[in-house]
Amino acid sequence: MDASNKSDDVGKTLETQAKAFFDSAPSLHNSHEITQKLIQFIQHNSSSLARRIVCVTSGGTTAPLEQLCVRYVDNFSSGHRGAISTEYFLKAGYAVIFLHRRGSYQPFCRSIPDDPLLECFELTNDLNIQVRKAYSEAVKRAILDHHTAVAGGHLLKLPFSTIFEYLQMLQMIAISMRCIGLRGMFYLAAAVSDYYVPWKNMVEHKIQSGPPLLDVKLFQVPKMLSVIRKDWAPQAFCVSFKLETDSSILVNKANAALEKYKMHAVVANELATRKEQVVVVTSAEKITGMRDNSESANDVENPLIKLLSKRHITYIEDSGR
Amino acid sequence: MDASNKSDDVGKTLETQAKAFFDSAPSLHNSHEITQKLIQFIQHNSSSLARRIVCVTSGGTTAPLEQLCVRYVDNFSSGHRGAISTEYFLKAGYAVIFLHRRGSYQPFCRSIPDDPLLECFELTNDLNIQVRKAYSEAVKRAILDHHTAVAGGHLLKLPFSTIFEYLQMLQMIAISMRCIGLRGMFYLAAAVSDYYVPWKNMVEHKIQSGPPLLDVKLFQVPKMLSVIRKDWAPQAFCVSFKLETDSSILVNKANAALEKYKMHAVVANELATRKEQVVVVTSAEKITGMRDNSESANDVENPLIKLLSKRHITYIEDSGR
Repeated sequence: MDASNKSDDVGKTLETQAKAFFDSAPSLHNSHEITQKLIQFIQHNSSSLARRIVCVTSGGTTAPLEQLCVRYVDNFSSGHRGAISTEYFLKAGYAVIFLHRRGSYQPFCRSIPDDPLLECFELTNDLNIQVRKAYSEAVKRAILDHHTAVAGGHLLKLPFSTIFEYLQMLQMIAISMRCIGLRGMFYLAAAVSDYYVPWKNMVEHKIQSGPPLLDVKLFQVPKMLSVIRKDWAPQAFCVSFKLETDSSILVNKANAALEKYKMHAVVANELATRKEQVVVVTSAEKITGMRDNSESANDVENPLIKLLSKRHITYIEDSGR
Repeated sequence: MDASNKSDDVGKTLETQAKAFFDSAPSLHNSHEITQKLIQFIQHNSSSLARRIVCVTSGGTTAPLEQLCVRYVDNFSSGHRGAISTEYFLKAGYAVIFLHRRGSYQPFCRSIPDDPLLECFELTNDLNIQVRKAYSEAVKRAILDHHTAVAGGHLLKLPFSTIFEYLQMLQMIAISMRCIGLRGMFYLAAAVSDYYVPWKNMVEHKIQSGPPLLDVKLFQVPKMLSVIRKDWAPQAFCVSFKLETDSSILVNKANAALEKYKMHAVVANELATRKEQVVVVTSAEKITGMRDNSESANDVENPLIKLLSKRHITYIEDSGR
């Protein structure tokens, strides 16, 4: 009895924290438009096509320190993992909602330089634009694959910047995906702020730079992973990520997350080796996914998405019995 | 006597702070390559061409909270001001060292969507790449202008991310520009961190997200504007920026900066109206620059750079007498 009361208490505390977060967050200015896009996208892919749909989150969220925001705390994340995973999910037959940090890395751009417009193209003598030879194949492939995904209605890209935008949009997506039940997946690769300044505590204007020491008090962001599983989309297959710089605590942290947030899988990765290998931790197994340099698609995301797609199918079959 | 002693003390304190900052900063891994590029660029533009050279800084700097950095404090800045100003400086005959935040807005891209590769181009039926009609002129202009500037050796782009990289690179640029004396200009439009965590105080690994409240203590970044004027490039014409969200304190802050850091001009701008108007404050005058919608180049940077270029010429002539 004691234990169950305790877990009820934790649930209530989280609910209170989540409510406080959403009540105080500045509202999304384009929520109507986003809702419309989501409904159409999910309907298109789930009705006649009966595709599985995955929400891939990607890039870091910001936590503003001022309401008229000049300074913010940011989480490092280029968005490579989410962008490349999106490509493999599409290849595996999923429709993808790509919830990404504005300006972060985009799917299909891995062989393209950072500044493609100015580096990949040149003008001919008669002032026409042509692709530089070195980039010709990469650019063609990127444009073709991207257009195919968008034209087929299998890729929906939604950008965010702040933790307030991110969590409100994630909530909208999760609630919209309830109707597809087991066929939904959340692949939560975004680097989400652990700490933030609640909107009401925030100063309106830019913090002045007078004092020699600035003391910033940050509050914990409610752990919404539990809320997705419990309330928003309880049937969806949920995969979260654990990134650490210290390998000695990594797998323990992943195991703890699996249990605490009731994830179906946790992908553990270390900052220094995250492009070479990841460990997928589920309640039944612990599988290391390595980058395979003998394959042409030699990203660690290739075996990772293959594995998760299989586990998702098993999950659908097992739950359907 | 008292006053001069006091100012000496301030000078010494700043020198100590600056020394402590550079001594503790992680060293740039590509400093040799940057030095080589700078020497070539300055030599090319100053010897036979006798161009004026401006160092435009652009975008925000980050202040990492961890040595193996996952979290950092960032300063909001898209880099529009610096990028567009670079175009007008080139037009006015300057050579430009564009010291910009990695991934921030680039010169010549103002009419191009955020994701140019995937939005501006399409494949023809025979799988060739062509520019979508709507973007044809903008893309041609961007590529042509950029290539002309780079091919002529008048534009050098150097990227930074952290406050440590930024200040070390700014120092290298300033010292390299000493030799062109009065013909150098610094146009310091970057949003530089006011506060940071000194490298030695920083934890090595990612801060764990256990405690409900995180207390971050940030120290003031030494005011390097004074050091540029006093030590690094004492003859160069120096322009700094003052951005505030509160208009009531803006011009006073600009005046204070002019005096305190011995700038030749301070550009005062308010967050909400910064694309419509700026106020240029010098010791002799206060001139409002407005965006002129009747001109084809209707940015506020157009009149701003014209004005600064004129003041720079007057400065060269007056100092040369």
